[in-house]
Amino acid sequence: MAAFTGLETYDVRFPTSRELDGSDAMNRDPDYSAAYVRLSTDEPSGLAGHGFVFTIGRGNDVQTAALAALRDHVVGRDVDAVLDDLGGFARSLVDDSQLRWLGPEKGVMHMAIGAVINAAWDMAGRRAGKPVWRLIVDMSPEQIVDLIDFRYLTDALTPAEALRILRAAQSGKAERIANLLEHGYPAYTTSPGWLGYSDEKLVRLAREAVSAGFDTIKIKVGLRIEDDVRRCELARSAIGADVALAVDANQRWDVPEAIAWLQHLQPFGIAWAEEPTSPDDILGHAAIRAAVAPIPISTGEHTHNRIMFKQLFQAQAVDLVQIDSARVGGVNENLAILLLAAKFGVRVFPHAGGVGLCELVQHLAMADYIAISTRMDDRRLEFVDHLHEHFRDPVRIRAGRYLAPQAPGFSAEMHPQSLQRYQFPTGAVWRK
Amino acid sequence: MAAFTGLETYDVRFPTSRELDGSDAMNRDPDYSAAYVRLSTDEPSGLAGHGFVFTIGRGNDVQTAALAALRDHVVGRDVDAVLDDLGGFARSLVDDSQLRWLGPEKGVMHMAIGAVINAAWDMAGRRAGKPVWRLIVDMSPEQIVDLIDFRYLTDALTPAEALRILRAAQSGKAERIANLLEHGYPAYTTSPGWLGYSDEKLVRLAREAVSAGFDTIKIKVGLRIEDDVRRCELARSAIGADVALAVDANQRWDVPEAIAWLQHLQPFGIAWAEEPTSPDDILGHAAIRAAVAPIPISTGEHTHNRIMFKQLFQAQAVDLVQIDSARVGGVNENLAILLLAAKFGVRVFPHAGGVGLCELVQHLAMADYIAISTRMDDRRLEFVDHLHEHFRDPVRIRAGRYLAPQAPGFSAEMHPQSLQRYQFPTGAVWRK
Repeated sequence: MAAFTGLETYDVRFPTSRELDGSDAMNRDPDYSAAYVRLSTDEPSGLAGHGFVFTIGRGNDVQTAALAALRDHVVGRDVDAVLDDLGGFARSLVDDSQLRWLGPEKGVMHMAIGAVINAAWDMAGRRAGKPVWRLIVDMSPEQIVDLIDFRYLTDALTPAEALRILRAAQSGKAERIANLLEHGYPAYTTSPGWLGYSDEKLVRLAREAVSAGFDTIKIKVGLRIEDDVRRCELARSAIGADVALAVDANQRWDVPEAIAWLQHLQPFGIAWAEEPTSPDDILGHAAIRAAVAPIPISTGEHTHNRIMFKQLFQAQAVDLVQIDSARVGGVNENLAILLLAAKFGVRVFPHAGGVGLCELVQHLAMADYIAISTRMDDRRLEFVDHLHEHFRDPVRIRAGRYLAPQAPGFSAEMHPQSLQRYQFPTGAVWRK
Repeated sequence: MAAFTGLETYDVRFPTSRELDGSDAMNRDPDYSAAYVRLSTDEPSGLAGHGFVFTIGRGNDVQTAALAALRDHVVGRDVDAVLDDLGGFARSLVDDSQLRWLGPEKGVMHMAIGAVINAAWDMAGRRAGKPVWRLIVDMSPEQIVDLIDFRYLTDALTPAEALRILRAAQSGKAERIANLLEHGYPAYTTSPGWLGYSDEKLVRLAREAVSAGFDTIKIKVGLRIEDDVRRCELARSAIGADVALAVDANQRWDVPEAIAWLQHLQPFGIAWAEEPTSPDDILGHAAIRAAVAPIPISTGEHTHNRIMFKQLFQAQAVDLVQIDSARVGGVNENLAILLLAAKFGVRVFPHAGGVGLCELVQHLAMADYIAISTRMDDRRLEFVDHLHEHFRDPVRIRAGRYLAPQAPGFSAEMHPQSLQRYQFPTGAVWRK
């Protein structure tokens, strides 16, 4: 019998603000960061699990403190008991009544809980010798339902309905696995479109993206309408008529402003308009969507839990949603969100980029295709070419598609040298 | 010219779980706690400001770390520049793009920002020699509008509309101040109704509440329906037909469960049913309200920002709302919420109890009566008789009403001995 013996944390920050990578209308000078957690055990094999919360700089210390506050919830527990009941483990963290007061189920504490849950999934994948997407799809529908906290969902999705969706997706599973392994999962890229980039850089990177095989790109908007019109024109003429062009306002607008602004961008054939307003404003998204139809509306990377996603679907507020691997309560809550999306027939375009978000979320998108929605060709997984070199099992992109990860675990582990070099404020990069 | 010179934090916890004070269906064994912050200056008078976030135990260290993370946002700033522009100060904290990622505007980081904003208000009251309620009502409508961040509100409330509400409330202000000073603000009490109390204690405390002059009491429900029916019967017969009886489920139910459960309690004449489900579930509250009418539905103590309150009103999801002094972005965001409530004609029954929440929120309720809604007799301010002895300027209750605080500031300061004795984990109470 092995036990959890440690929960170590690292405050890791990359000085991305120096090049304006990742700059958008709300986040002008992010330093992409990870509040990183490593769970260790006394397994003779050295079994460990890795997870993190992505942040953009200041406050990464608070996020790291929240991870450390979970130490007593993990250390001393039996490894097999936790990994054989990841639903129970997740609930034991989310339902701690005292910690719950700090949300409930939102913000710093919920993200920390999600990272520890994800680290347990990383460990479970390693123990099973499988990448996490494969670990999920090899589970029975009953096992998957058991992972999910249906609290506050049953007016929209019951366990019985979830089971029906999962059972229906059993058919054709082997073919989908083979298809995924052969062709990968379709991606889109945001790399050309950061708001801090010059027009010349936007055009050059947009052309490079198309040459590299991407059929969809996204650019940031929302600071000045004249700039947005010009940038959309430039992007559209760089990529041609057959490549999809999405825009992302990163929550910049009020509802009336979003409606007026998006009407100016309609001529450029917008594939979707992402985060037009506050992620909390479900009714606002519904109003914007109704007013600017047929421009598809989306949100989700900051949507803080399954209850908010449920309402986005109930209110018909979105045409598609982003999910984020490191904002909600880990794999478990994302499975609930994917099941809700399948129930309501809403397409999922996972959020990635940042630090390691591509590495994590690819597992969820692939599990969704194989075992939940059974759909892949009508959705795209975000790709940003940042900071992958710091991960032991970085994403592999070929001709605009993510290749399925093969290494056991959640692709979450960073190189020890990276943890050390970018440690804030003592690492070599920050001491300069 | 004086400057801010320090931001000190204290992790203060009271071992309330030992007596089951504060126990409810979701929070079975809370240790009422405060992540406490003191802003200091180099003013020769020793001018300082006090604020805090209320939590219920574990995680109070994370909340305290979030306060400490704001030190660089405060220390070194000019005192008069901050206190003369509390709107600008609040925005400078809320709009820090890197910290914003940790919410946005929710959870640990937003509560910390709210506590620091409240501490600045405490300081502004002291500097002016006025209690905060008086500081607010002595401002012009234009000054109050300038305090508010209208971002994400303008589809429901514009600055011009807010100005109209505030200008209309100028009439009769002197009479309302006199009325408040003479009679105080009506309260209700939750002291009898904690779920961990025996039937005998419930009945005894309910009778005592009526004898003390309260015309409204609230009891906790949501664990077992048979217990709730029995406790409602006992409470109703203890207080008689003329005293109002509210129930509070503390987010215990899913939507269908709330509807079924509340129908069982209808015979007892429920004044309102509070927090029937997740505070995030705006559409869920609307569904419950429609199904159990005429039982009034309310929520708000966990509603994390003005955008969520806006939607509760837009969706006609509530009959009345709780506001909380220490969950949203300080006085400024609460003024936005009070203006929204006035615009939509929704009554406000402020949440109090915990550690110091009565002390803070009384100022907001009184400012609302005098300068915003102009209403007092159709609302009640929660009172719980806990832990007031730790505050320098504790609330004063007479015949079921809060007397207006007179001391300069926000009534937020705790006795230094209390900060020391209850400091976690080194204070005398925790070392035992």
